[in-house]
Amino acid sequence: MVYLVSYDIEEDRKRKRVADRLLADGLIRVQYSVFIGPLKSHLHEKLLTWLSQLLDKPEKDRLIIMNMRAEDIEKMHILGEVEWEPEMLSGKQHTLFL
Amino acid sequence: MVYLVSYDIEEDRKRKRVADRLLADGLIRVQYSVFIGPLKSHLHEKLLTWLSQLLDKPEKDRLIIMNMRAEDIEKMHILGEVEWEPEMLSGKQHTLFL
Repeated sequence: MVYLVSYDIEEDRKRKRVADRLLADGLIRVQYSVFIGPLKSHLHEKLLTWLSQLLDKPEKDRLIIMNMRAEDIEKMHILGEVEWEPEMLSGKQHTLFL
Repeated sequence: MVYLVSYDIEEDRKRKRVADRLLADGLIRVQYSVFIGPLKSHLHEKLLTWLSQLLDKPEKDRLIIMNMRAEDIEKMHILGEVEWEPEMLSGKQHTLFL
């Protein structure tokens, strides 16, 4: 299953911990605070538990996680220069050619 | 069709113009730089044209627009306090009860 994770987290250190974890789990940073990528279901569960414990200030830590469809991701409109391609986000293409 | 729009835009004034336009088009701000909501297809086309003209610095203005499925939005996980409900994002519920 492919997921989109997006957050507004006030504290720099906490925000960096979340970003590092999402990247380590294999998601790709598509914007400063938005990540997309495939997650196996056990990883998704572990991530949710870890996030729920870390993000303990509900008025300062806001995060959403959503299922995405690979076909919707691959048809996305992109404005500006990015270092990824939609196919990478759905796990279909692993190598980036620059 | 329901869309997610997310951006990283360096210039404050330009960023505010985009946020104001997305809100005026009826999208809901779900994070500081992420908006979700239904858009009729002619509004979607007009928005894309407007954005393409405004965001003219590809290394400083990055924006993505994606189709979303109402059922995926309604099942999203939310951590933290937010002033909207998933049903509002897919256009199914227009009134916010606080």
